[in-house]
Amino acid sequence: MNYPMGIKGKTRVKVNKNIDYKNRGMNLEDDLNITNDYYIEKEIAYIYKKPTPIKLVKVDYKKAKITEAYFDSPSTTDYNGIYKGHYIDFEAKETENVRGFPLINIHPHQIKHIRNINKESGICFLIVRFSKLCKTYLLMANDFIEYIDSNKKSVIPITYFEDRAYLIKDKFMPRVDYLEIINNILEE
Amino acid sequence: MNYPMGIKGKTRVKVNKNIDYKNRGMNLEDDLNITNDYYIEKEIAYIYKKPTPIKLVKVDYKKAKITEAYFDSPSTTDYNGIYKGHYIDFEAKETENVRGFPLINIHPHQIKHIRNINKESGICFLIVRFSKLCKTYLLMANDFIEYIDSNKKSVIPITYFEDRAYLIKDKFMPRVDYLEIINNILEE
Repeated sequence: MNYPMGIKGKTRVKVNKNIDYKNRGMNLEDDLNITNDYYIEKEIAYIYKKPTPIKLVKVDYKKAKITEAYFDSPSTTDYNGIYKGHYIDFEAKETENVRGFPLINIHPHQIKHIRNINKESGICFLIVRFSKLCKTYLLMANDFIEYIDSNKKSVIPITYFEDRAYLIKDKFMPRVDYLEIINNILEE
Repeated sequence: MNYPMGIKGKTRVKVNKNIDYKNRGMNLEDDLNITNDYYIEKEIAYIYKKPTPIKLVKVDYKKAKITEAYFDSPSTTDYNGIYKGHYIDFEAKETENVRGFPLINIHPHQIKHIRNINKESGICFLIVRFSKLCKTYLLMANDFIEYIDSNKKSVIPITYFEDRAYLIKDKFMPRVDYLEIINNILEE
Protein backbone atom coordinates (compact mmCIF):
# COMPACT_ATOMS: atom_id res chain seq x y z
CA MET A 1 0.00 0.00 0.00
CA ASN A 2 1.39 3.37 -1.00
CA TYR A 3 1.07 6.33 1.32
CA PRO A 4 1.25 9.78 -0.23
CA MET A 5 3.97 12.15 0.95
CA GLY A 6 5.99 9.22 2.27
CA ILE A 7 3.94 9.10 5.43
CA LYS A 8 3.50 5.79 7.16
CA GLY A 9 1.01 5.05 9.88
CA LYS A 10 3.64 4.70 12.58
CA THR A 11 1.28 4.56 15.48
CA ARG A 12 -1.35 2.42 13.81
CA VAL A 13 -1.16 -0.98 15.35
CA LYS A 14 -4.14 -2.89 14.05
CA VAL A 15 -4.79 -3.45 10.41
CA ASN A 16 -8.47 -4.01 9.76
CA LYS A 17 -8.56 -6.07 6.59
CA ASN A 18 -12.31 -5.74 6.26
CA ILE A 19 -12.34 -2.02 5.54
CA ASP A 20 -13.70 -1.21 2.13
CA TYR A 21 -10.99 0.92 0.55
CA LYS A 22 -13.07 1.67 -2.58
CA ASN A 23 -12.53 5.26 -3.60
CA ARG A 24 -10.63 6.16 -0.49
CA GLY A 25 -7.27 4.49 -0.55
CA MET A 26 -6.92 4.43 3.21
CA ASN A 27 -8.60 4.38 6.57
CA LEU A 28 -9.68 7.24 8.81
CA GLU A 29 -6.56 7.23 10.95
CA ASP A 30 -4.29 7.50 7.92
CA ASP A 31 -6.49 10.24 6.45
CA LEU A 32 -6.34 12.17 9.72
CA ASN A 33 -2.57 11.79 10.01
CA ILE A 34 -2.15 13.23 6.52
CA THR A 35 -4.65 15.99 7.27
CA ASN A 36 -2.88 16.94 10.50
CA ASP A 37 0.52 16.89 8.76
CA TYR A 38 -0.96 19.22 6.14
CA TYR A 39 -2.25 21.61 8.83
CA ILE A 40 1.18 21.62 10.52
CA GLU A 41 3.06 22.17 7.26
CA LYS A 42 0.77 25.05 6.29
CA GLU A 43 1.00 26.46 9.85
CA ILE A 44 -2.79 26.24 10.22
CA ALA A 45 -2.96 24.15 13.40
CA TYR A 46 -0.82 21.91 15.58
CA ILE A 47 -2.86 18.81 16.29
CA TYR A 48 -1.29 15.41 16.93
CA LYS A 49 -2.41 11.86 17.55
CA LYS A 50 -1.21 10.67 20.92
CA PRO A 51 0.96 7.55 20.84
CA THR A 52 -0.82 4.30 21.66
CA PRO A 53 -0.38 3.64 25.38
CA ILE A 54 1.69 0.53 25.97
CA LYS A 55 2.41 -1.27 29.20
CA LEU A 56 6.00 -2.44 29.33
CA VAL A 57 6.81 -5.73 31.02
CA LYS A 58 10.30 -6.69 29.86
CA VAL A 59 12.90 -4.31 28.49
CA ASP A 60 16.46 -5.12 27.51
CA TYR A 61 17.97 -1.74 28.39
CA LYS A 62 21.37 -2.57 26.90
CA LYS A 63 19.80 -2.99 23.47
CA ALA A 64 17.00 -0.46 24.19
CA LYS A 65 14.69 -3.25 23.05
CA ILE A 66 11.26 -4.05 24.43
CA THR A 67 10.68 -7.79 24.51
CA GLU A 68 7.34 -8.02 26.30
CA ALA A 69 4.62 -5.41 26.35
CA TYR A 70 0.83 -5.09 26.05
CA PHE A 71 -1.61 -2.57 24.68
CA ASP A 72 -3.12 -0.35 27.35
CA SER A 73 -6.48 1.40 27.15
CA PRO A 74 -6.35 5.16 26.63
CA SER A 75 -7.57 7.49 29.39
CA THR A 76 -8.19 10.42 27.06
CA THR A 77 -9.15 10.93 23.44
CA ASP A 78 -6.58 10.19 20.75
CA TYR A 79 -6.09 13.64 19.24
CA ASN A 80 -5.43 17.06 20.69
CA GLY A 81 -3.72 20.33 19.95
CA ILE A 82 -4.20 24.00 19.17
CA TYR A 83 -6.02 25.90 16.40
CA LYS A 84 -6.22 29.71 16.31
CA GLY A 85 -5.36 29.75 19.98
CA HIS A 86 -8.17 27.32 20.87
CA TYR A 87 -7.69 23.97 22.58
CA ILE A 88 -8.86 21.18 20.24
CA ASP A 89 -9.63 17.64 21.44
CA PHE A 90 -11.27 14.78 19.59
CA GLU A 91 -11.71 11.07 19.18
CA ALA A 92 -11.92 9.44 15.74
CA LYS A 93 -13.71 6.17 15.05
CA GLU A 94 -14.59 4.13 12.02
CA THR A 95 -17.57 1.77 11.90
CA GLU A 96 -18.93 -0.67 9.33
CA ASN A 97 -22.34 -0.41 10.93
CA VAL A 98 -24.77 1.30 8.54
CA ARG A 99 -27.51 2.01 11.09
CA GLY A 100 -25.53 3.93 13.64
CA PHE A 101 -22.47 4.29 15.82
CA PRO A 102 -22.10 1.63 18.55
CA LEU A 103 -21.13 3.34 21.81
CA ILE A 104 -19.01 0.37 22.80
CA ASN A 105 -16.34 2.05 20.64
CA ILE A 106 -15.85 4.78 23.24
CA HIS A 107 -14.43 3.84 26.66
CA PRO A 108 -16.23 5.20 29.76
CA HIS A 109 -13.12 7.18 30.82
CA GLN A 110 -13.01 8.73 27.35
CA ILE A 111 -16.63 9.85 27.79
CA LYS A 112 -15.68 11.36 31.14
CA HIS A 113 -12.75 13.12 29.45
CA ILE A 114 -15.04 14.51 26.71
CA ARG A 115 -17.38 15.88 29.41
CA ASN A 116 -14.44 17.50 31.23
CA ILE A 117 -12.99 19.17 28.15
CA ASN A 118 -16.41 20.39 27.05
CA LYS A 119 -17.08 21.89 30.47
CA GLU A 120 -13.65 23.60 30.39
CA SER A 121 -14.61 25.30 27.07
CA GLY A 122 -12.28 23.23 24.93
CA ILE A 123 -13.42 22.53 21.38
CA CYS A 124 -14.26 18.87 21.67
CA PHE A 125 -15.88 16.49 19.18
CA LEU A 126 -16.03 13.05 17.64
CA ILE A 127 -15.15 12.25 14.03
CA VAL A 128 -17.07 9.14 12.98
CA ARG A 129 -16.64 7.48 9.61
CA PHE A 130 -19.38 5.14 8.42
CA SER A 131 -17.12 3.27 6.02
CA LYS A 132 -19.88 1.37 4.17
CA LEU A 133 -21.84 4.59 3.67
CA CYS A 134 -18.67 6.48 2.63
CA LYS A 135 -19.62 9.26 5.02
CA THR A 136 -17.56 10.99 7.71
CA TYR A 137 -19.30 13.11 10.33
CA LEU A 138 -18.13 15.57 12.96
CA LEU A 139 -20.34 15.43 16.08
CA MET A 140 -19.73 18.18 18.65
CA ALA A 141 -19.29 17.06 22.28
CA ASN A 142 -22.45 18.94 23.34
CA ASP A 143 -24.59 16.90 20.97
CA PHE A 144 -22.80 13.68 21.85
CA ILE A 145 -23.33 14.25 25.58
CA GLU A 146 -26.96 15.28 25.04
CA TYR A 147 -27.59 11.99 23.25
CA ILE A 148 -25.98 9.70 25.80
CA ASP A 149 -27.61 11.55 28.72
CA SER A 150 -31.11 11.28 27.30
CA ASN A 151 -31.01 7.83 25.73
CA LYS A 152 -30.25 4.43 27.11
CA LYS A 153 -29.55 2.93 23.70
CA SER A 154 -26.11 1.53 22.96
CA VAL A 155 -26.02 2.91 19.42
CA ILE A 156 -26.29 6.52 18.23
CA PRO A 157 -28.52 6.13 15.16
CA ILE A 158 -27.36 7.43 11.79
CA THR A 159 -30.40 9.74 11.77
CA TYR A 160 -28.97 11.56 14.80
CA PHE A 161 -25.77 12.19 12.83
CA GLU A 162 -27.81 13.39 9.85
CA ASP A 163 -29.70 15.82 12.14
CA ARG A 164 -27.01 17.03 14.51
CA ALA A 165 -23.57 16.30 13.08
CA TYR A 166 -21.63 18.03 10.29
CA LEU A 167 -20.80 16.03 7.18
CA ILE A 168 -17.09 16.34 6.35
CA LYS A 169 -16.69 16.68 2.60
CA ASP A 170 -14.23 14.43 0.78
CA LYS A 171 -11.31 16.43 -0.53
CA PHE A 172 -8.00 15.68 -2.11
CA MET A 173 -6.04 17.85 0.32
CA PRO A 174 -6.52 18.15 3.19
CA ARG A 175 -8.28 14.83 3.04
CA VAL A 176 -10.56 15.19 6.09
CA ASP A 177 -10.82 18.95 6.48
CA TYR A 178 -12.51 19.01 9.88
CA LEU A 179 -11.09 22.44 10.72
CA GLU A 180 -13.22 23.97 7.94
CA ILE A 181 -16.25 23.01 10.07
CA ILE A 182 -14.66 24.18 13.33
CA ASN A 183 -13.77 27.46 11.67
CA ASN A 184 -17.40 27.99 10.61
CA ILE A 185 -18.58 27.23 14.14
CA LEU A 186 -16.05 29.70 15.61
CA GLU A 187 -17.22 32.42 13.21
CA GLU A 188 -20.90 31.90 14.03
CA MET B 1 9.34 2.55 46.47
CA ASN B 2 5.93 3.61 47.64
CA TYR B 3 3.85 5.98 45.55
CA PRO B 4 1.21 8.02 47.36
CA MET B 5 -2.41 7.64 46.26
CA GLY B 6 -1.63 4.28 44.69
CA ILE B 7 -0.29 5.97 41.57
CA LYS B 8 2.42 4.24 39.64
CA GLY B 9 4.52 5.77 36.95
CA LYS B 10 2.95 3.70 34.18
CA THR B 11 4.59 5.53 31.34
CA ARG B 12 7.95 5.98 33.00
CA VAL B 13 10.31 3.66 31.30
CA LYS B 14 13.76 4.52 32.53
CA VAL B 15 14.71 4.50 36.15
CA ASN B 16 17.61 6.83 36.82
CA LYS B 17 19.27 5.37 39.86
CA ASN B 18 21.55 8.37 40.28
CA ILE B 19 18.83 10.81 41.24
CA ASP B 20 19.24 12.16 44.70
CA TYR B 21 15.92 11.44 46.40
CA LYS B 22 16.83 13.31 49.59
CA ASN B 23 13.85 15.25 50.82
CA ARG B 24 11.83 14.61 47.75
CA GLY B 25 10.80 11.01 47.66
CA MET B 26 10.45 10.90 43.90
CA ASN B 27 11.49 12.28 40.58
CA LEU B 28 10.00 15.12 38.54
CA GLU B 29 7.88 12.88 36.32
CA ASP B 30 6.26 11.20 39.33
CA ASP B 31 5.71 14.58 40.98
CA LEU B 32 4.07 15.93 37.81
CA ASN B 33 1.86 12.86 37.43
CA ILE B 34 0.60 13.32 40.98
CA THR B 35 0.16 17.06 40.44
CA ASN B 36 -1.81 16.53 37.21
CA ASP B 37 -3.97 13.87 38.87
CA TYR B 38 -4.68 16.36 41.64
CA TYR B 39 -5.67 19.05 39.11
CA ILE B 40 -8.01 16.59 37.36
CA GLU B 41 -9.58 15.36 40.59
CA LYS B 42 -10.19 18.94 41.77
CA GLU B 43 -11.48 19.89 38.28
CA ILE B 44 -8.82 22.60 38.01
CA ALA B 45 -7.22 21.52 34.73
CA TYR B 46 -7.01 18.55 32.36
CA ILE B 47 -3.36 18.08 31.53
CA TYR B 48 -1.87 14.69 30.68
CA LYS B 49 1.49 13.22 29.89
CA LYS B 50 1.50 11.71 26.43
CA PRO B 51 2.38 8.02 26.27
CA THR B 52 5.99 7.24 25.32
CA PRO B 53 6.07 6.68 21.55
CA ILE B 54 7.01 3.11 20.73
CA LYS B 55 7.77 1.56 17.37
CA LEU B 56 6.25 -1.88 17.11
CA VAL B 57 8.13 -4.57 15.21
CA LYS B 58 6.55 -7.88 16.20
CA VAL B 59 3.08 -8.33 17.66
CA ASP B 60 1.35 -11.58 18.49
CA TYR B 61 -2.20 -10.41 17.76
CA LYS B 62 -3.80 -13.60 19.11
CA LYS B 63 -2.34 -12.90 22.54
CA ALA B 64 -2.39 -9.10 22.04
CA LYS B 65 1.25 -9.29 23.08
CA ILE B 66 4.11 -7.16 21.76
CA THR B 67 7.28 -9.22 21.47
CA GLU B 68 9.61 -6.76 19.76
CA ALA B 69 9.48 -2.98 19.94
CA TYR B 70 11.76 0.03 20.35
CA PHE B 71 11.55 3.46 21.94
CA ASP B 72 10.85 6.20 19.44
CA SER B 73 11.78 9.86 19.83
CA PRO B 74 8.89 12.23 20.57
CA SER B 75 7.90 14.83 17.96
CA THR B 76 6.19 17.12 20.45
CA THR B 77 6.53 17.98 24.12
CA ASP B 78 5.45 15.41 26.70
CA TYR B 79 2.58 17.23 28.39
CA ASN B 80 -0.45 19.09 27.10
CA GLY B 81 -4.02 19.91 27.99
CA ILE B 82 -6.41 22.66 28.98
CA TYR B 83 -6.58 25.12 31.90
CA LYS B 84 -9.28 27.81 32.20
CA GLY B 85 -9.99 27.38 28.52
CA HIS B 86 -6.33 27.93 27.56
CA TYR B 87 -4.18 25.45 25.66
CA ILE B 88 -1.25 24.36 27.86
CA ASP B 89 1.86 22.66 26.50
CA PHE B 90 5.15 21.89 28.23
CA GLU B 91 8.22 19.74 28.45
CA ALA B 92 9.68 18.62 31.78
CA LYS B 93 13.31 17.77 32.36
CA GLU B 94 15.50 16.92 35.29
CA THR B 95 19.24 17.57 35.36
CA GLU B 96 22.03 16.87 37.83
CA ASN B 97 24.07 19.66 36.31
CA VAL B 98 24.45 22.49 38.87
CA ARG B 99 25.68 25.14 36.42
CA GLY B 100 22.86 25.08 33.93
CA PHE B 101 20.50 23.15 31.71
CA PRO B 102 22.20 21.27 28.82
CA LEU B 103 20.17 21.84 25.64
CA ILE B 104 20.97 18.33 24.44
CA ASN B 105 18.00 17.33 26.62
CA ILE B 106 15.56 18.91 24.16
CA HIS B 107 15.24 17.42 20.66
CA PRO B 108 15.35 19.84 17.69
CA HIS B 109 11.78 18.86 16.65
CA GLN B 110 10.65 19.63 20.20
CA ILE B 111 12.18 23.10 19.92
CA LYS B 112 10.34 23.57 16.62
CA HIS B 113 7.12 22.44 18.33
CA ILE B 114 7.67 24.93 21.20
CA ARG B 115 8.14 27.73 18.64
CA ASN B 116 4.93 26.70 16.84
CA ILE B 117 2.79 26.56 19.98
CA ASN B 118 4.17 29.85 21.23
CA LYS B 119 3.40 31.55 17.90
CA GLU B 120 -0.14 30.09 18.00
CA SER B 121 -0.70 31.76 21.43
CA GLY B 122 -0.65 28.53 23.39
CA ILE B 123 0.72 28.72 26.93
CA CYS B 124 4.02 26.95 26.46
CA PHE B 125 6.93 26.45 28.84
CA LEU B 126 9.64 24.19 30.21
CA ILE B 127 9.75 22.81 33.72
CA VAL B 128 13.37 22.14 34.65
CA ARG B 129 14.42 20.56 37.91
CA PHE B 130 18.01 20.98 39.05
CA SER B 131 17.97 17.93 41.28
CA LYS B 132 21.27 18.61 43.10
CA LEU B 133 20.18 22.19 43.83
CA CYS B 134 16.68 21.00 44.89
CA LYS B 135 15.16 23.70 42.68
CA THR B 136 12.45 23.44 40.04
CA TYR B 137 11.95 26.29 37.56
CA LEU B 138 9.27 27.18 35.05
CA LEU B 139 10.75 28.91 31.99
CA MET B 140 8.23 30.42 29.56
CA ALA B 141 8.68 29.55 25.86
CA ASN B 142 9.34 33.22 25.00
CA ASP B 143 12.34 33.34 27.31
CA PHE B 144 13.55 29.91 26.22
CA ILE B 145 13.38 30.92 22.52
CA GLU B 146 15.03 34.27 23.20
CA TYR B 147 17.95 32.47 24.83
CA ILE B 148 18.54 29.91 22.11
CA ASP B 149 18.17 32.51 19.35
CA SER B 150 20.73 34.87 20.85
CA ASN B 151 23.28 32.42 22.22
CA LYS B 152 25.28 29.67 20.64
CA LYS B 153 26.02 27.97 23.92
CA SER B 154 24.81 24.44 24.51
CA VAL B 155 23.80 25.07 28.12
CA ILE B 156 21.31 27.58 29.51
CA PRO B 157 23.16 28.85 32.62
CA ILE B 158 21.51 28.65 36.02
CA THR B 159 21.78 32.45 36.24
CA TYR B 160 19.40 32.74 33.26
CA PHE B 161 16.86 30.65 35.21
CA GLU B 162 17.40 32.82 38.30
CA ASP B 163 16.78 35.97 36.20
CA ARG B 164 14.02 34.88 33.85
CA ALA B 165 12.31 31.74 35.12
CA TYR B 166 9.81 31.28 37.95
CA LEU B 167 10.83 29.16 40.92
CA ILE B 168 8.15 26.55 41.68
CA LYS B 169 7.73 26.27 45.42
CA ASP B 170 7.83 22.84 47.05
CA LYS B 171 4.43 21.90 48.40
CA PHE B 172 2.84 18.86 49.86
CA MET B 173 -0.14 18.96 47.52
CA PRO B 174 -0.11 19.66 44.66
CA ARG B 175 3.54 18.77 44.67
CA VAL B 176 4.69 20.89 41.70
CA ASP B 177 2.04 23.59 41.52
CA TYR B 178 3.04 25.08 38.17
CA LEU B 179 -0.50 26.34 37.51
CA GLU B 180 -0.16 28.80 40.39
CA ILE B 181 2.52 30.53 38.31
CA ILE B 182 0.51 30.29 35.08
CA ASN B 183 -2.49 31.72 36.90
CA ASN B 184 -0.45 34.72 38.07
CA ILE B 185 0.82 35.28 34.52
CA LEU B 186 -2.76 35.12 33.15
CA GLU B 187 -3.95 37.65 35.73
CA GLU B 188 -1.14 40.12 34.99
